[in-house]
Amino acid sequence: MVEEIRSSPVPYRTALIVGAGSGISASVTRALSRAGVKVAVASRNADRLAPLSDETSALAFAADATDPAAVNRLFEQTEAAIGVPEIVLYNASGRVRGPIVDLDAELVRRAIEVSSWGAFLVVQQAARRLIPRGQGAILLTGATASVKGFAHSSAFAVGKFGLRGLAQSAARELAPQGIHVAHFVIDGAVRSATRPDPAERPDSTLDPDAIAQTYLDVLRQPRSAWSWEIELRPWVENF
Amino acid sequence: MVEEIRSSPVPYRTALIVGAGSGISASVTRALSRAGVKVAVASRNADRLAPLSDETSALAFAADATDPAAVNRLFEQTEAAIGVPEIVLYNASGRVRGPIVDLDAELVRRAIEVSSWGAFLVVQQAARRLIPRGQGAILLTGATASVKGFAHSSAFAVGKFGLRGLAQSAARELAPQGIHVAHFVIDGAVRSATRPDPAERPDSTLDPDAIAQTYLDVLRQPRSAWSWEIELRPWVENF
Amino acid sequence: MVEEIRSSPVPYRTALIVGAGSGISASVTRALSRAGVKVAVASRNADRLAPLSDETSALAFAADATDPAAVNRLFEQTEAAIGVPEIVLYNASGRVRGPIVDLDAELVRRAIEVSSWGAFLVVQQAARRLIPRGQGAILLTGATASVKGFAHSSAFAVGKFGLRGLAQSAARELAPQGIHVAHFVIDGAVRSATRPDPAERPDSTLDPDAIAQTYLDVLRQPRSAWSWEIELRPWVENF
Amino acid sequence: MVEEIRSSPVPYRTALIVGAGSGISASVTRALSRAGVKVAVASRNADRLAPLSDETSALAFAADATDPAAVNRLFEQTEAAIGVPEIVLYNASGRVRGPIVDLDAELVRRAIEVSSWGAFLVVQQAARRLIPRGQGAILLTGATASVKGFAHSSAFAVGKFGLRGLAQSAARELAPQGIHVAHFVIDGAVRSATRPDPAERPDSTLDPDAIAQTYLDVLRQPRSAWSWEIELRPWVENF
Repeated sequence: MVEEIRSSPVPYRTALIVGAGSGISASVTRALSRAGVKVAVASRNADRLAPLSDETSALAFAADATDPAAVNRLFEQTEAAIGVPEIVLYNASGRVRGPIVDLDAELVRRAIEVSSWGAFLVVQQAARRLIPRGQGAILLTGATASVKGFAHSSAFAVGKFGLRGLAQSAARELAPQGIHVAHFVIDGAVRSATRPDPAERPDSTLDPDAIAQTYLDVLRQPRSAWSWEIELRPWVENF
Repeated sequence: MVEEIRSSPVPYRTALIVGAGSGISASVTRALSRAGVKVAVASRNADRLAPLSDETSALAFAADATDPAAVNRLFEQTEAAIGVPEIVLYNASGRVRGPIVDLDAELVRRAIEVSSWGAFLVVQQAARRLIPRGQGAILLTGATASVKGFAHSSAFAVGKFGLRGLAQSAARELAPQGIHVAHFVIDGAVRSATRPDPAERPDSTLDPDAIAQTYLDVLRQPRSAWSWEIELRPWVENF
Repeated sequence: MVEEIRSSPVPYRTALIVGAGSGISASVTRALSRAGVKVAVASRNADRLAPLSDETSALAFAADATDPAAVNRLFEQTEAAIGVPEIVLYNASGRVRGPIVDLDAELVRRAIEVSSWGAFLVVQQAARRLIPRGQGAILLTGATASVKGFAHSSAFAVGKFGLRGLAQSAARELAPQGIHVAHFVIDGAVRSATRPDPAERPDSTLDPDAIAQTYLDVLRQPRSAWSWEIELRPWVENF
Repeated sequence: MVEEIRSSPVPYRTALIVGAGSGISASVTRALSRAGVKVAVASRNADRLAPLSDETSALAFAADATDPAAVNRLFEQTEAAIGVPEIVLYNASGRVRGPIVDLDAELVRRAIEVSSWGAFLVVQQAARRLIPRGQGAILLTGATASVKGFAHSSAFAVGKFGLRGLAQSAARELAPQGIHVAHFVIDGAVRSATRPDPAERPDSTLDPDAIAQTYLDVLRQPRSAWSWEIELRPWVENF
């Protein structure tokens, strides 16, 4: 799936990926590294990052995206290590599932915070550093739940709809300042070690490397023709 | 503006309005009272409710919509006073304005909580009481920011997009259980004492009584033809 | 389903319903007649209109909505008989179903014309007569296919998406001239003699009288709080 | 703007562009040619195609996209010359502007046909040839008017909304058969000889080469992560 073209240059030199681990974030980290971008990755649990860091030489930081001081520190550490991150990807999300009547109120609060408030904190730190430069890119990973609220998915829908509102507001505010804000609607299941692509229905799950390909394509868009929102789904997905 | 038809019956007997005060909530309170519905109103600051309570005989309660225990208590007090509220309206919202780089992180967190998590808490309490009855209505007041994220409005957009996600998820989950969930996109400025309708441009602001008229119309919809989302804007509003 | 409230006054005296027969158009005709509005109904096949005309005393005209001269004549006849129609409802649609590869090109062309170009012709004639008066209402009946293009429904989707584009453009253009343009997304099956409501799943089809109730509610909205688009679906409908 | 990466391979060998001339179609033709794809271009007026054909060695055909026989012939000619087109781009549109009351009904009909029915005819011929192969790509060029109906733009909105309905229906129908259907919302003015990019506001118009870059990116998406709709706008565009 990953072809030659994936190692083509992107017009940025540094990146910070918040909410990293496996899946999309790992594929984006690899693709950016191949393209010559220096990458820092962050997770609340830094242990999760060891395999990715070993593989790609990405710098790994522990940070809770819902702690304003920690987010600020993360940007300072990243800047000290690789320079101001010109690409910032928010990939974290909070999810609890179940009927509205059964959900734990505190877990719902926490899920909303991780999906949306944490994103705000990261976008804010990114904007503070990128606006003076007049360029940069902020990418936000959404889901089907960003545009469709399903039964038993209320907490996730609140957080992901909220993230989309942030993305649209940030795009309107920051694009004219040279910062490309893009929101990705990942509309389907992402394949992984625990969720392999079904042999009898090939490519019915999203290959994270294929997702990363489009993330990098968006980073390469000239500013005269930017996308704000891109949905991605498997060819056989219902929508 | 308020005509005879406004006092026609709605198929519910009791209502609880959270985030009450002046404006939309007051007009809905009046319209429901005229239609014979017993109404309880709640606000974080109960002093705000005195004029409305005096005028309509609505019961007034103080409650912080972002305190799970307080929300539970509010429903218990309402139930003790007027019975289970068959109509529940969430009308509170949190708003801070300004460039992303300037916003206070804690105020943003708080705004998101008021607009969306508080709504979740109220919807949850409502659902717990209405599902066993197999009927009821949950109304949620949105804004332009529910569907459009503007520059300098990121915190409000996160909260209001999030509320819309809740509304859609709740509608998909609760409608088949007999509970009508409706989300209103109030797309324009609501007129008030401090924001009168401009004489040179009549009806360019939303009359809260006119908004309340549509809220009641939605409450009267037979279950074979329910609206989930209704936008309202002045005739001369750009959109 | 039809209650007292349905005979409350609407702020218009005359109506023209194009694409009339049974179903929604018949229910709207009845509801408007009860509310004291004089109604003219039109269909390509005037024979279809006899029962409705007999029942409601609505005037019946034969007119092909995709013939500009015929549409003009229809408005002239209506004006001569009951005065300029202050309410105009376009309810006609063209539908062919099947895989894209199998559809007959000419039938597709015709379906698109009926759903969208015919609507344009009717809206145009209505606008010419209503703009000088500074008031009136134009209602357009959409479907699930207005907002969602399904497999094997391409021709219908083209026509209904197109109608929605007309409705939105007309609303932006005509609302500031005092004309309320409203688009209804009928999201489900409408019950009828040939499609009765299933006893084991009551109200899982849209009662056309319930639909008409909301059409009339929209006609009664004060201009400070107009809806442009209203979706209606049964309580148990998936969406 | 056009970089090395633009000559990277796409997974298709042949293309047919309907509604070709200058602008987007010319840039896509050049980009595909550079990527080694054999391209046929068609226009109602073949004279328009001479410069592009001379420059890129694309084959030029005259065809009226709203003539079913001509569209069929165009596909046969293309097939005879370069093989079945594995990429088909519909780029034609019909536009008349003005207040609803002033538009010529026949010109409106014609505009709707060019924007939407012509697209259906082309998609149909493409589908007939691509379904048996189990792969291919159908691209459709939309506009701001595909998602927003503006005043004085009713005819264009009907056609472009309609095209979007076709695109969505075709995507749902054809994607599971291996055919990638993608709809592009070109949200801004495309720069051209007669509409140069303003020096005082650089990149405020869409560079057609930049647009073509994203068209080719979409063609390169692996089927596990396809986009159906992509919007493109200049960094300083209001939306």
